[in-house]
Amino acid sequence: MSTRTVIRGGLVITASDELHADVLIEDGRIAALATSGTTVADGWTAEKVIDATGKYVIPGGVDAHTHMEMPFGGTKAADTFETGTRAAAWGGTTTIVDFAIQSVGGALREGLDAWHAKAEGNCAIDYGFHMIVSDVNEDTLKEMDLLVQEGVTSFKQFMAYPGVFYSDDGQILRAMQRAADNGGLIMMHAENGIAIDVLVEQALARGERDPRYHGEVRKALLEAEATHRAIKLAQVAGAPLYVVHVSAMEAVAELAKARDEGLPVFGETCPQYLFLSTDNLAEPDFEGAKYVCSTPLRPKEHQAKLWQGLRTNDLQVVSTDHCPFCFVGQKEMGRGDFSKIPNGMPGVENRMDLLHQGVVDGHISRRRWIEIACASPARMFGLYPKKGTIAPGADADVVIYDPHAEQTVSAETHHMNVDYSAYEGKRLTGRVETVLSRGELVITEREYTGHAGHGVYTPRSTSQYLN
Amino acid sequence: MSTRTVIRGGLVITASDELHADVLIEDGRIAALATSGTTVADGWTAEKVIDATGKYVIPGGVDAHTHMEMPFGGTKAADTFETGTRAAAWGGTTTIVDFAIQSVGGALREGLDAWHAKAEGNCAIDYGFHMIVSDVNEDTLKEMDLLVQEGVTSFKQFMAYPGVFYSDDGQILRAMQRAADNGGLIMMHAENGIAIDVLVEQALARGERDPRYHGEVRKALLEAEATHRAIKLAQVAGAPLYVVHVSAMEAVAELAKARDEGLPVFGETCPQYLFLSTDNLAEPDFEGAKYVCSTPLRPKEHQAKLWQGLRTNDLQVVSTDHCPFCFVGQKEMGRGDFSKIPNGMPGVENRMDLLHQGVVDGHISRRRWIEIACASPARMFGLYPKKGTIAPGADADVVIYDPHAEQTVSAETHHMNVDYSAYEGKRLTGRVETVLSRGELVITEREYTGHAGHGVYTPRSTSQYLN
Amino acid sequence: MSTRTVIRGGLVITASDELHADVLIEDGRIAALATSGTTVADGWTAEKVIDATGKYVIPGGVDAHTHMEMPFGGTKAADTFETGTRAAAWGGTTTIVDFAIQSVGGALREGLDAWHAKAEGNCAIDYGFHMIVSDVNEDTLKEMDLLVQEGVTSFKQFMAYPGVFYSDDGQILRAMQRAADNGGLIMMHAENGIAIDVLVEQALARGERDPRYHGEVRKALLEAEATHRAIKLAQVAGAPLYVVHVSAMEAVAELAKARDEGLPVFGETCPQYLFLSTDNLAEPDFEGAKYVCSTPLRPKEHQAKLWQGLRTNDLQVVSTDHCPFCFVGQKEMGRGDFSKIPNGMPGVENRMDLLHQGVVDGHISRRRWIEIACASPARMFGLYPKKGTIAPGADADVVIYDPHAEQTVSAETHHMNVDYSAYEGKRLTGRVETVLSRGELVITEREYTGHAGHGVYTPRSTSQYLN
Amino acid sequence: MSTRTVIRGGLVITASDELHADVLIEDGRIAALATSGTTVADGWTAEKVIDATGKYVIPGGVDAHTHMEMPFGGTKAADTFETGTRAAAWGGTTTIVDFAIQSVGGALREGLDAWHAKAEGNCAIDYGFHMIVSDVNEDTLKEMDLLVQEGVTSFKQFMAYPGVFYSDDGQILRAMQRAADNGGLIMMHAENGIAIDVLVEQALARGERDPRYHGEVRKALLEAEATHRAIKLAQVAGAPLYVVHVSAMEAVAELAKARDEGLPVFGETCPQYLFLSTDNLAEPDFEGAKYVCSTPLRPKEHQAKLWQGLRTNDLQVVSTDHCPFCFVGQKEMGRGDFSKIPNGMPGVENRMDLLHQGVVDGHISRRRWIEIACASPARMFGLYPKKGTIAPGADADVVIYDPHAEQTVSAETHHMNVDYSAYEGKRLTGRVETVLSRGELVITEREYTGHAGHGVYTPRSTSQYLN
Repeated sequence: MSTRTVIRGGLVITASDELHADVLIEDGRIAALATSGTTVADGWTAEKVIDATGKYVIPGGVDAHTHMEMPFGGTKAADTFETGTRAAAWGGTTTIVDFAIQSVGGALREGLDAWHAKAEGNCAIDYGFHMIVSDVNEDTLKEMDLLVQEGVTSFKQFMAYPGVFYSDDGQILRAMQRAADNGGLIMMHAENGIAIDVLVEQALARGERDPRYHGEVRKALLEAEATHRAIKLAQVAGAPLYVVHVSAMEAVAELAKARDEGLPVFGETCPQYLFLSTDNLAEPDFEGAKYVCSTPLRPKEHQAKLWQGLRTNDLQVVSTDHCPFCFVGQKEMGRGDFSKIPNGMPGVENRMDLLHQGVVDGHISRRRWIEIACASPARMFGLYPKKGTIAPGADADVVIYDPHAEQTVSAETHHMNVDYSAYEGKRLTGRVETVLSRGELVITEREYTGHAGHGVYTPRSTSQYLN
Repeated sequence: MSTRTVIRGGLVITASDELHADVLIEDGRIAALATSGTTVADGWTAEKVIDATGKYVIPGGVDAHTHMEMPFGGTKAADTFETGTRAAAWGGTTTIVDFAIQSVGGALREGLDAWHAKAEGNCAIDYGFHMIVSDVNEDTLKEMDLLVQEGVTSFKQFMAYPGVFYSDDGQILRAMQRAADNGGLIMMHAENGIAIDVLVEQALARGERDPRYHGEVRKALLEAEATHRAIKLAQVAGAPLYVVHVSAMEAVAELAKARDEGLPVFGETCPQYLFLSTDNLAEPDFEGAKYVCSTPLRPKEHQAKLWQGLRTNDLQVVSTDHCPFCFVGQKEMGRGDFSKIPNGMPGVENRMDLLHQGVVDGHISRRRWIEIACASPARMFGLYPKKGTIAPGADADVVIYDPHAEQTVSAETHHMNVDYSAYEGKRLTGRVETVLSRGELVITEREYTGHAGHGVYTPRSTSQYLN
Repeated sequence: MSTRTVIRGGLVITASDELHADVLIEDGRIAALATSGTTVADGWTAEKVIDATGKYVIPGGVDAHTHMEMPFGGTKAADTFETGTRAAAWGGTTTIVDFAIQSVGGALREGLDAWHAKAEGNCAIDYGFHMIVSDVNEDTLKEMDLLVQEGVTSFKQFMAYPGVFYSDDGQILRAMQRAADNGGLIMMHAENGIAIDVLVEQALARGERDPRYHGEVRKALLEAEATHRAIKLAQVAGAPLYVVHVSAMEAVAELAKARDEGLPVFGETCPQYLFLSTDNLAEPDFEGAKYVCSTPLRPKEHQAKLWQGLRTNDLQVVSTDHCPFCFVGQKEMGRGDFSKIPNGMPGVENRMDLLHQGVVDGHISRRRWIEIACASPARMFGLYPKKGTIAPGADADVVIYDPHAEQTVSAETHHMNVDYSAYEGKRLTGRVETVLSRGELVITEREYTGHAGHGVYTPRSTSQYLN
Repeated sequence: MSTRTVIRGGLVITASDELHADVLIEDGRIAALATSGTTVADGWTAEKVIDATGKYVIPGGVDAHTHMEMPFGGTKAADTFETGTRAAAWGGTTTIVDFAIQSVGGALREGLDAWHAKAEGNCAIDYGFHMIVSDVNEDTLKEMDLLVQEGVTSFKQFMAYPGVFYSDDGQILRAMQRAADNGGLIMMHAENGIAIDVLVEQALARGERDPRYHGEVRKALLEAEATHRAIKLAQVAGAPLYVVHVSAMEAVAELAKARDEGLPVFGETCPQYLFLSTDNLAEPDFEGAKYVCSTPLRPKEHQAKLWQGLRTNDLQVVSTDHCPFCFVGQKEMGRGDFSKIPNGMPGVENRMDLLHQGVVDGHISRRRWIEIACASPARMFGLYPKKGTIAPGADADVVIYDPHAEQTVSAETHHMNVDYSAYEGKRLTGRVETVLSRGELVITEREYTGHAGHGVYTPRSTSQYLN
């Protein structure tokens, strides 16, 4: 027997439309939309009726870049799949795509199995996996084909972190060639890690040990260089390319140039690059450590160029790169040596709100908000139209969003398992009120009504952004 | 008492979504969408039921650039509002925005009234007006404000045609400044007409009199130059800019560059530039005259760059610039002097099909087809969400499109009032089957069931593309 | 009977070489160079021996852009050919190329004759003429051919000053086509004067009447636009192009881009753009009027890009655009209306020193100093190797330059016939000590020993820069 | 007692001047120039008088890129310093700068000493050394300072040849930083060797074994990528950069872009890239092996862009990369496996003639010929004004060049110690007639009159190109 929910009276917003409509949910899917107040809409009966008058009714967010429980530098990210996906739900995100990791010397399968084990039964919302490829070899390349077939259709490589995740240009080229064949999408961490490591060593030798030096050694030019190189390697391979966490305006320029040449090149940025800057990295008393992530925060003037890239579609996706480490005990590992600070920031809960603030501030339109936060990531990673939109047939991942509510971001009130907020004290207009995942209420008028294990693994098709 | 129509079983395609849904129309508007086969969809009753199984259900096309009955070079365009809008409907277009013309020395109002008189009571589908500003002066500038208020929110100027429609850079700057204030959008015919007229005179003096010389004298570089100049003038004025009928790849490059710099600059191309070339202009026995329009057709290699621009959104809209002149009696006026050939081509009936062929040929996705042909022109010119989408609340302008039908384009079967087709003999996959305008059947399974006067004047808000 | 002069012991600097050599002059020409102190050098006997120990021995400057006695806005430039060429000599310049002017409706010949009459018998140094073409028509085009044959090989057109010198794009295209045929070089004043006049009118209407508004209305973007347009017209015509008095970095960028595309496009800047800025235009008490010229001074940040263009050869020549108007009685005509301030600045005396200061400040090398001030202008305008170098066979136009002397620029000490200096109080390192023109001492250890009438008209070949 | 030579009646050409002058040589240096036919010139007496009537008198060529006796792939370049410098002299080159090689694990000093030993007493003309740095470490960096002090002021690194000469980006960055401090100049072989090696392996696996595949796997995009990367690393280091043997137009574009941004970046190309193409690599019967060098020959359309770069000074130097391997016995090592063909071509004898052919063909002017072949390499590598010009004080390295002589290039008549010519059968206009090195006749009217040991090691100052 079917369960029905109807959401009445809200403004439904998708990547292309804004409409005053009631939304009917049946068996976990969007069954119908009808103009509010019409006979047909009013005729709908349902077990649950949600009043969205004065609110937005938007697709649940798709966060295509999270790192739950990720091991890094001798510790691991503080959010488990349980705490992290719950926090995501609080923030209006109903799907994450997390990164399974191949160890050097290990098989992709091994890494993927390990991540399945961490996630299964623990998630509040649906999830999928990308695969981090740390070790390209003949076996790995064959496994890539298999993974694509079972719904892991994107592969991340690193031009940074020599000795850990680093792939050289030959390994990158090989993986890209394989992706060109099997339909996979290469996701690139584009920083020249080999050169950066020299600058790190030299900075430390000069006694430059505070967190702000993290921002100085990881130069914008070296992000742009790696971005350019990844583009050229992809061009040689005949493969598309997705550059993760773009933070430097010079890197945006490389993407724009490549797209002007007609290359299938895509870019993601993150809220931290849109709202924070090297000013934060320079906060005294080691507070800057809270903002250590890679690519690093950039000087403020980069922000406008990132927003511009989002408007002109030279950047297509905003993800979080959520990878939280507690200030106490974790970030502190790098006191006296910025290179030992675990790289990563919390953010999975804040993304939808921060981007809505971008709407309020006039940077983007409401439709573009939904596009970069829901629809484009879903399409980019083969989750569409199940995820990322509100349309008959789609999963009923729906957020009732109050555009007028005022909130102040704080670690005291957030739900991520981390002892600080990168946006502590920031006042935002707009707030998630209610969240449904496949028709189930996960957040109900700002109360958590979901449960671990509701979220299920969601295999993905190949990227739909290229079609 | 309301009338209801339901369209069952088709694949609904909008700018962002593709869904298997039934569409309920009530009182001329889309009332609801529901997943086909669900109880809620099946429960709908309606006076009319249209079976769209195996078909696409798409928004009616919005052709933002037509010239019905336009006077040009001592003759006038062969399609009246009656014949032209009927042909548009046959081709799946349910809204046109035509150009009212200010005479030099006359008032905008005068021109607009004249065009209202031509259109009123004669149109098969809805229509709006842009205003051609031929004479910028203090009065004109004041009238622009008034026109914006009454729904004529876009103004076309010409850098070509000295002595006729031509505005000099000062007049352009003034109009742009005014548009920056009143929210209007300047549409630019970007060709350096002053320089072109020199080349025309020289070509004729050399005895170069055939139609193909039309393409040679109107150089791509002079389109690109004017495009660049218009962009810079708009930048000085702080105004957005919409460049009409872009045909040269060098002009696309200027638009792309401006957009990379963050300027609110937009571009339109037309099917003739995507499918035809200077080869057509060179057809013997004066046949080339059929393809004389300005900007002119370009060598074939430009086509790929135009498709690319459509993919990367450096070009946002495909319109027709429909302005048909019969070969016999009209185009023939230019025998022996290409400069006397009336400029313009028929096309309002072919646009949706030709662009669908672009989908079949792999140039664009289905969603992008709908975006450039329906949604973006509607947003660009303030008709959204009334026009350009299928969503509850929108006008029920809907096309049932058979993606598998085969057709051969021919003047013998087309419905435009012109004695030739620019695509004579071209085989296309896909065909319009049924067309509704505000819920009324205008084309019913390839039979005309509409009537002159059904179409109404549709005032427009200011451009929604910038929000 | 020959007269011989020998210059001993200096550092001879040319565009490509620096050498310790004695220079032997015979019959007004450089006869020989020999390493100082060698038997061969020591063996030279001469009527005059000049000791240049510790000094530079450089070619006399070639100032390719002066306006002596030029009529402008109801007055005329304050320097006559007599006073102006004397001041030039004081400043180390031994050749000027001045602009003869065609009146609208008049013949080129008429203008050229008038300028010959003004100059003949009055000049302290040699001179040639460019021709300002104000009225392109069939007759003018034919006259261009004749002028090229008689040594007036360059033609200036204006995209600014509508109603005065202004040529429209058609006139420009025609003149460029002719130049492409006859070997002439089109020199362009590149500002969109039509658009600027609108901004002037609007500024005055807003009550913006001070000199600084001159800089605000003549926008950098409108210089860059016109530069781009001139380049494109030249490309259509298949002609080379020389853009005069480039002041905006955006215009330099257009030149650089064109040169990257392989187009024969050249640019000149002037010392005022390298050393002065809009800060000067904003000087109180109408003092800003002293700095009113067109193209206007730009904000300080443009200076670095001009120096860079000089280093990378995207700019090839530094001329003065010397066109002095006295502050009292002339500049004052524009009190209360900046548009009535005569456009122009004195500078013919300061160029060599200011550019040497550029050497001292590290902007350019010594060789590049000679290249942009002597050799390139000579080559660009067909005076090479007569002028612009120190080599056997060249005219003995030689400057003994003291690189260590200190001087303070001032109207009290300068020799130009104008009541102010644009560089009043500026301290410079380096000073002209002795100047020879065709072997005659014009300045002898900072005493004027020349005479009006020494200087002769010097016909020019076509541009040698392209060979 | 001094010896004197006088060269009478020729056209002396330098980088900036062309003059009819007699040249007096005394004690191995240019002592004086005097206009031919003047009393002063006619008065010169000398032991030797060379009649240059109807000939050019030009500076001896400076070839800044040779590899005499270089070990490569298990064999070594076929020209010794003796045969190679003799052949250079035959071709009008009077200075070479060869590359000493540091072995991995060895000291710079060690390599330099070895190269001194090979050259000393064997050279017909003067020579200097660059240092190939194969192993950047703390010791190497310190040695770089010492080498700069003793006249080895340029250091070559390789982004190609992993496992042999390859430096990673960190090693490159370190060396560049050191060069920024000590005034050295980094010379870069810019190809992404890591990626290329993947393509080589894949090509061989596909059975693509002929010489032409050498050109296909070493992709132009991978040269451009490495060029871009080297530029960015130099920008981070604050160092200048000289890119050797640029062959791809996309690499020229990267250099042009960097120079437009004001970066001190320089580029060299070689005659083989200006005159040969992938058509040669595709010659049948393994003949293509003769043309195997890296960077590889490119398709013909690249040639025009290289000439353009030479005209616009985006490329500054033409060297030969002379590194000959005999077809029989050496090139043949790669039969059946193109990757085993020794990389390199003969050319030291042909450079001046081929570039003169560029003058004849209209690509460059005579002055530019001398600039790119003599003056700029001398300046770039700190040999100026000793080498690269004809001016009092310079070394009397002079070539009497017959611009009208016709010759046919052939291995049968050339003097390089290699069994084929890359230009076999090519007809050229212009030929070296007589060559002096420091006043000594090395080639006398096409007879070798020099001797091994005449040439001496010539220490170099730091690059003069930047001053």
